[in-house]
Parts: sequence; structure tokens; C-alpha cells
Amino acid sequence: MHHDPQTHPFHVIGVDIGGGKIALGAVSSAGEVTASQQYPTGPERPAEAVIDDLTARIRKMTEEVPFEVDGLGVGVCGQVVMSSGVVRQSPNLPNWDDVPLRQRLEAALGLPVTVANDMKVIALGQWQYSSERAVDDLVVVFVGTGVGGGVIANGQMLLGRDDHAGEVGHATIMVDGRECRCGNLGCLEAYVGGWAIAERAREAAEGDPREGAKLLALAGGNLENITAETVADANREDDDLARRIVEETGHYLGAGMVGVVNGFNPSRLILGGGVLDGIPELLESVEAHVQRYALRACTTDLEVILAEFGAEAGILGGAALAMQTLPNARSRSGELDA
Amino acid sequence: MHHDPQTHPFHVIGVDIGGGKIALGAVSSAGEVTASQQYPTGPERPAEAVIDDLTARIRKMTEEVPFEVDGLGVGVCGQVVMSSGVVRQSPNLPNWDDVPLRQRLEAALGLPVTVANDMKVIALGQWQYSSERAVDDLVVVFVGTGVGGGVIANGQMLLGRDDHAGEVGHATIMVDGRECRCGNLGCLEAYVGGWAIAERAREAAEGDPREGAKLLALAGGNLENITAETVADANREDDDLARRIVEETGHYLGAGMVGVVNGFNPSRLILGGGVLDGIPELLESVEAHVQRYALRACTTDLEVILAEFGAEAGILGGAALAMQTLPNARSRSGELDA
Repeated sequence: MHHDPQTHPFHVIGVDIGGGKIALGAVSSAGEVTASQQYPTGPERPAEAVIDDLTARIRKMTEEVPFEVDGLGVGVCGQVVMSSGVVRQSPNLPNWDDVPLRQRLEAALGLPVTVANDMKVIALGQWQYSSERAVDDLVVVFVGTGVGGGVIANGQMLLGRDDHAGEVGHATIMVDGRECRCGNLGCLEAYVGGWAIAERAREAAEGDPREGAKLLALAGGNLENITAETVADANREDDDLARRIVEETGHYLGAGMVGVVNGFNPSRLILGGGVLDGIPELLESVEAHVQRYALRACTTDLEVILAEFGAEAGILGGAALAMQTLPNARSRSGELDA
Repeated sequence: MHHDPQTHPFHVIGVDIGGGKIALGAVSSAGEVTASQQYPTGPERPAEAVIDDLTARIRKMTEEVPFEVDGLGVGVCGQVVMSSGVVRQSPNLPNWDDVPLRQRLEAALGLPVTVANDMKVIALGQWQYSSERAVDDLVVVFVGTGVGGGVIANGQMLLGRDDHAGEVGHATIMVDGRECRCGNLGCLEAYVGGWAIAERAREAAEGDPREGAKLLALAGGNLENITAETVADANREDDDLARRIVEETGHYLGAGMVGVVNGFNPSRLILGGGVLDGIPELLESVEAHVQRYALRACTTDLEVILAEFGAEAGILGGAALAMQTLPNARSRSGELDA
């Protein structure tokens, strides 16, 4: 018999492996997070050490929660082949080249495990657990240090040939524009990613020290310490330069989101990530830009909204992934009871 | 019993309604075009007149082919709501606002009819009938007067909320760039669409009449008569300005296709349309640009190729659409024999 969340409650663990921190939590089939924790990833450690540490924590969590755990869903900030559960590579986890994460976790835990790119996992969680469950087409874009996206199309994760669809941060919004970390010029991320906002702010403050005085002061007098957070802080204090950088960031992000809206025609464009947390008014700029400049046909049923669940977005996404694949996983491991 | 193309051959008619011409053809379940014709659309005529004319031609074709026709698939160069078969609007068919095309054709012909946007239909045809049938993720981009796209994702047409997904011609590739006909600035179409190539060529020839002498001569001495075809002709005659415009066009189109490849992660990027027909070397520029600048993970299994079937691409697409929806259509009209 398949698990029916309406009548047979079950529980899974969702894990979000980021470059900075790892979050894990136990989630009931009703979408309740019943236990959670987060801790620093230590990206410089070997992948094996990170995985050993993680399996110990998961084992402990499964022992502590007052119910049986049926499966595990994991999002990783990198390129993941879903069919094999292998992490191909990750810009923020330098020691994670071709790591067979699913195999390792399944062997250590004896649970069915599903692994996917973190943004796809978060998109699935937003779709599954938020008030947007009723729509079948949504795009989630997170603007943190980098810019990543996840797409739900016709009620399914959009994966593409190699499970890498949704990399909207690396659409060119300015031919021959700013250098991106990916090796291309003019990517959306090269304008609105946290690292790029910091870079633009440093350039501006260096170019006009009088205008940049506030940013420089907030950065302790050291230009190199200006970050996207410094810009967010100065913006909250009505600093002119910070406000201009925020305005331009909204303009660039809006331009990128026009491409997303015209390309995927979602009914919800859901924005989140550290940059949106620090500069929430970007939501309004993007919405105004998209409503004005995207094709009318693509905006008729569109709402631009903020992501839900804060720090638990990755946990709930992992849980959604586990629950979505649980019947298959059980069948795969011979545990499906007919 | 459902029709199985392997054992029970059947036939459909595919129709491609463009702003310039309409093409229709009878297609067997084996993908053979057994009859076809094309004629000028007359976009200035009322939609009713175009539809009456079309139904007469379809009726005649169904009478002339030596088999029964089971259904009709129609691609229209405009925004179509597939569930209702209504053409919402079309930039190239000014009299086609909210035309209930499916209803009209079904009433007139007594056949199940499916209607969709022409680029989605062409993508379906390329997928269904070309040598690319074995892949499940492809993007088709046609560069003609405008730039349109159609996406097959995981073996299905990518539609989005309102069936308008795939409008990749209106991704911003240059923030605050050239004016597009859609009302935005810096769209891909505003650089590489036929009208935009013509505009860029006119500006260049006007700015430097000596450099523009060849283009002007080919246009009969009238700057306003320079078109994308003039550029293609001069490029074939090794004119310096035309070659520069072609190079720049490849650079812009390549930048746009990087966004497409990173966004949809297709295994085939299929390019076609009048501009590609006239300047086929654009394929190589795009391929080189994408292989160099798209994310490595997204190009591992990617091939950039030309569209197949020439003038019959729309007919075969319409046929694929009809065949895909035939069982449903029959069931809908009560004709499904159990």
C-alpha cells in the first residue's frame, strides 16, 4: 500500500547542504518540522568527513524523534545527477567532485535517499508546502552570493537533459558586460549576486570616496570589507550611493526576470535569498519592471512574491523531494508492501 | 481501441498559419507528407475570411487524398490558449483578437482540431519526426522577422501557466539596449530579428555611406529598402560591412542562446527561420559561443543543429500536434471506440 499523507502520516528528513552551512530537519507528512538543526559546513574539509558528520547527525535525529523516519531528501549547492545521486561538482564545495552522495547515505543509514540541486529542491518545497500549492507553474530565484533558480513546470521539477535546467543566474543580460565567476561576461549574477553587488559598491566607493564615505565607514575604513550586507545596511540608513546601487540592482534583476517570465511563463515568480532578505524592496522593483516590460500574455496570471519558510526552506524542500520519490525509492529497495 | 501508428496507419492534416503565408498538408502516421500547398495569408483580411478560405481548402484536401483524415493540428503565429483553441492575439495578424479558431474549424469540418502557438508546434514536429526523436529535451529557436522559441522538456511541450512559455526572443540581452517592438529595451529580437538586422544595417550604412555602398546598391539606392536579406546577399559577396553585421549578429544570438542553454539544459538546440536560411554560418557562431560561454554542465550533452524539413516544418508540426492529441480529441467528441 502506498503511503497516503491524508490517512497514514509518515516522516522524512530534509537536508540542505550549502557552502556555508548545512541544515537538517525531521518533517511530518503534514509538513510540520518537528526537529531541526544547522551547523557550519566546513567546505574545506574532505567530502567524506562532511558526510560522516552528517550521517551521525541524521542517525541521532532519527533516534530522538518519536516516530520512524521513512526517507531522506537532500539538496546540494552544486550540479547533481539525480538518477545516480552523484554530486558532479560545486563551486562552493571545492572537495566535492563526483561524490556518490546518495549511495554513501543509503549505505550508512539504510534509508531511501534522493539527492538534487538545492534550488530545485527549494522550488519543490515552495510548491509543495506554501500557499502556492494550487499552481502548477512557478519559478523560484534565490539571490545570495550567487543567483540560482528552480522551475516547477506543469507540476514537475524542470530538469533538462542533465538535471541542470534553471540556471537563470547565468543568462546574459549585458552582452560584453561585467565578468562573471562562471567565465562568461554579462551574466545576471555578475550584476546582482552578492559578490557582484559588493564589487560594484567597491568600485563606486573607490571612484568617488566622498560619495562612498558611508559604505567605507560601515566597512571599518577598508574598501575590501564592503559586502552586499554593507550596501543593505547603508541603504537602510538612506545613504545616497547605497540607494543608487540598490536601484540599479533592482533594474538589473528586473531585466533578468523579464527573460525568466517570458521564457517559462510561470504563474508565480518567487524571490528569496540573502540579498532579498537584506534589501526586501528589490521585490517591488522586480515586480514593477516585469509587469511593465515582460510580454503582456506572460504577466496576465503572474504574481511576484517572496519565498516562504526562511531558514527552513531547504529542509522543507528536502522533505518534499523525499516524499515525492518515496514510493519509487521503496519499490527500488524492495520495501514496497503491496 | 487507440490508434497505434505502428499497426493502424492513419492520417491528419497539419496547418501553419503565419503572418505571410499559410501552409497545409496531409500527413500519414508514418510522417509522410502526401499532399501540401501554401498560399498568402492576406493578414489584412478579417479572421473570418481567412478561416472560411482555409476550411474550404482543408475540405478539398481531405476529399482529394485517398484516405480518411482523422484530425487537424494547427500552429498560429500568435498567443494561443490551447485548452480552448482561442487565438488571443498575434502581432502579425492584426485582425485575430480572441478568435475561437478550434471551435470554428471543428464546426466547419467535423474533425477533432488542436491549436497551438506555431513555435511550440514546430518544436513538437522537430522532436517527433526528425532524427532527434530519441532525445527528450530540446529547444527550437526560429529567427525570422521576429525570434520565437519552442521547448520540449522531458518529452512534453513546455507550456507554462498560459501556454506562452518559450518566448526566448524577448529575453533581455542588453539592459537599456535597443528598442524592441514588444515595448521593452534590449531584447534578443531587437538585435537579431530580421527587422532588427535591417535596422542595424540601415544605421551603419547611413553612418558611413562609403562602407555602406554595397548594401545601398543592393537596395536600389534607397536606404529604407535595406533588409536582412540585403545583408545576407552582401555577406555572400564578401562585403565588409555586411560581414561585420553578420559577426555581431552571431555574437548577440550566441549570448541569447547561452541563456537558453543554461535555463533549459536541452540536449539539442535547434535553429531555423529565414535569417538562418540566409546566413547559415550563424549556426557555427552560436555553437562556438555556447560551447565556450554556457555552463560546462549544460553543454556536456548539447548539440547545436539546424532545423529540418524546410517549408514543411510547420505542416509536420501541426500533424504531430494532431496525432499527439488525437486519442483525447476523439474521446472528447465521443468517437473513441473501446
